[in-house]
Amino acid sequence: MRTQVAIVGAGPAGLLLSHLLWLDGIDSVVLETRSRDYVERRVRAGVCEHPTVELLREVGLAGRLEEEGLPHHGINLRFDGEDHRIALTDLTGREIVVYGQQEIVKDLIAARLAAGAEIHFEVSDVELHDVTGDSPRVTFKDSTGATQELRADVIAGCDGFHGVSRPSIPDGILRTYDHVYPFAWLGVLVKAPPSHEELIYTNHERGFALHSMRTPELTRLYLQVDPNDVLADWSDARIWDELHARLAVNGDFELHEGPIVERLLSPMRSFVVEPMRHGRLFLAGDSAHIVPPTGAKGMNLAVADVLALSRALKALLTDGRTDPVESYSDTCLRRVWRAEHFSYFMTTMLHRDYSADPFQHRLQLSQLRYTATSVAAATSLAENYVGLPFS
Amino acid sequence: MRTQVAIVGAGPAGLLLSHLLWLDGIDSVVLETRSRDYVERRVRAGVCEHPTVELLREVGLAGRLEEEGLPHHGINLRFDGEDHRIALTDLTGREIVVYGQQEIVKDLIAARLAAGAEIHFEVSDVELHDVTGDSPRVTFKDSTGATQELRADVIAGCDGFHGVSRPSIPDGILRTYDHVYPFAWLGVLVKAPPSHEELIYTNHERGFALHSMRTPELTRLYLQVDPNDVLADWSDARIWDELHARLAVNGDFELHEGPIVERLLSPMRSFVVEPMRHGRLFLAGDSAHIVPPTGAKGMNLAVADVLALSRALKALLTDGRTDPVESYSDTCLRRVWRAEHFSYFMTTMLHRDYSADPFQHRLQLSQLRYTATSVAAATSLAENYVGLPFS
Repeated sequence: MRTQVAIVGAGPAGLLLSHLLWLDGIDSVVLETRSRDYVERRVRAGVCEHPTVELLREVGLAGRLEEEGLPHHGINLRFDGEDHRIALTDLTGREIVVYGQQEIVKDLIAARLAAGAEIHFEVSDVELHDVTGDSPRVTFKDSTGATQELRADVIAGCDGFHGVSRPSIPDGILRTYDHVYPFAWLGVLVKAPPSHEELIYTNHERGFALHSMRTPELTRLYLQVDPNDVLADWSDARIWDELHARLAVNGDFELHEGPIVERLLSPMRSFVVEPMRHGRLFLAGDSAHIVPPTGAKGMNLAVADVLALSRALKALLTDGRTDPVESYSDTCLRRVWRAEHFSYFMTTMLHRDYSADPFQHRLQLSQLRYTATSVAAATSLAENYVGLPFS
Repeated sequence: MRTQVAIVGAGPAGLLLSHLLWLDGIDSVVLETRSRDYVERRVRAGVCEHPTVELLREVGLAGRLEEEGLPHHGINLRFDGEDHRIALTDLTGREIVVYGQQEIVKDLIAARLAAGAEIHFEVSDVELHDVTGDSPRVTFKDSTGATQELRADVIAGCDGFHGVSRPSIPDGILRTYDHVYPFAWLGVLVKAPPSHEELIYTNHERGFALHSMRTPELTRLYLQVDPNDVLADWSDARIWDELHARLAVNGDFELHEGPIVERLLSPMRSFVVEPMRHGRLFLAGDSAHIVPPTGAKGMNLAVADVLALSRALKALLTDGRTDPVESYSDTCLRRVWRAEHFSYFMTTMLHRDYSADPFQHRLQLSQLRYTATSVAAATSLAENYVGLPFS
């Protein structure tokens, strides 16, 4: 097999890259170790920032998002038993749309297949070769177990934090930045209408909690938990007790209960490698960086990466210009570090770090009060949350 | 001796409180362990925020400040070898004035003595008594060594971090919040015109540096140093080498050298006690809280405290209303914690913490770039720097 761009990974990054390249007349082949069904059901991010929504519209991928996505014009910071609304749209003129990552993946797969794209699901033994030469290759076993070789002009490593792309780069090339937080998130999907029309980020002495939603019938709720906890530590009763306690507020807020239909534990981590390119291998999305979920930036960063990558690859493969490829990593990393800082800011402002001194708790409260009352501070949070413009 | 308000400490807090009370027709006596000459030469803060300047104008104390103070309309963040100006006045409509704390002390002492105020310098063995009863007392030895007793309605503890007022409060009453930073400041006063008309806050890989000034002929320069360093570690040559290295910038910046006429080491600390009142003893200024100097908030907080205290004491002593006295601590602490957070923000953004992981350094740079380029973020910094309105 031969293509112009070998794309490893059929998550939002790899599939969107394939779509953007196709619009630019560039061929790609996508390899994915999981099944189509698995990636279409894999629940991850749910908040599309404004530039992401705009891009999806521009490239003809926003049809179902416009119908089923839930536009939000504000979020709430809940602390000291009260809600303080950050009026995203009033402050920035922009909005976010709650639309599950797996829905975007479904839309992308449908669009790519309709356009005749080659996506190989359930491949295995993926290996990258000769990434520093002119003819990089990917070898793998296809879903029948047959060994295949895919030759390409470049390889896009869109296979996430645990994928093979990043580890294919020899030691000594990448500089790694890593930060682990002293807590994790327990997320539950509940068959019940959301208890509030907007997201509620809660700083409570018992720990962080987040009220969110997937659809008008499905509520998403998160609890800060100990990073060593396992799901068995958290019975339904304990989950509800904690949610009620942390989300309690002066005035009327009724938390709607319902059957818990999904639950997951996710660690909180910040991770970046620099540069995001090695020869003809380009990393994009989670393969190059992880943010804690508090800022809702993970998928949006992947989208920004592949937009920059599609432009750079068009310049390289269509026009023979190498500058955009040379600057790909720096271009992405400016946005990556902005998102890393914003995610760190949101995470440290909203979670209780029980290893921190009492001084830090007081600073948190002062920061929350200030953010809720200063137009400048609220605008700063809002412009990051709705997404700074793609460069 | 008897007065309405016994004020312990003749720094800016105690002297301004005495002045404000006098304007309200309330008598006070000020006790100070140091000599008049010492307090008039004691170099501390140099930045008066906007509400401080406005208050000094309103109460007739800004004559010499208007003539000799240096109004500033911006500050500079220097990093990555470039200056990024925060246009304080364009962003907030307000300005700051560089005018040494010791100059304010001189003005206050002159004004108080002209009005016939009683200030006892060089007292010793100051002790506070019966602060929870109706008739608190202060005993001390006056400058001749004679034992004196000062009876009052209330006592104002304006005697700084190392004063006797705070330790007079029994164990178990105050909650203490304390945070020590892993660096200190080496400050020098240089007989040379400032090298730039505005303050320059520098984040450099060798550590923080600050270019400031006291007058058009006197430059003030600061270096981040190890908290265990002593002055003997820092020869003039080493100081200048470090200053040149850290303040280097692309383009033309010439650091003016000159004789170093003063030098001091100051630790970096955040410290707050709650509440700021015990019975009829009221803490104000550094006796209740310390900020690291990076945000230039120490003296300005003291001014805000004594304005709130003068109002509360007028209500109590003139009108017999106790509400403002009851809420004094909460009123002050809201502003104190805002300043603690801002000072922490400035300190952690600008200093190099060599114990931090490399991830934190990258976050710093992203935060600096964002603060320098986002109007919202720059406005947030600016509105804190010029001073949020007194409540």
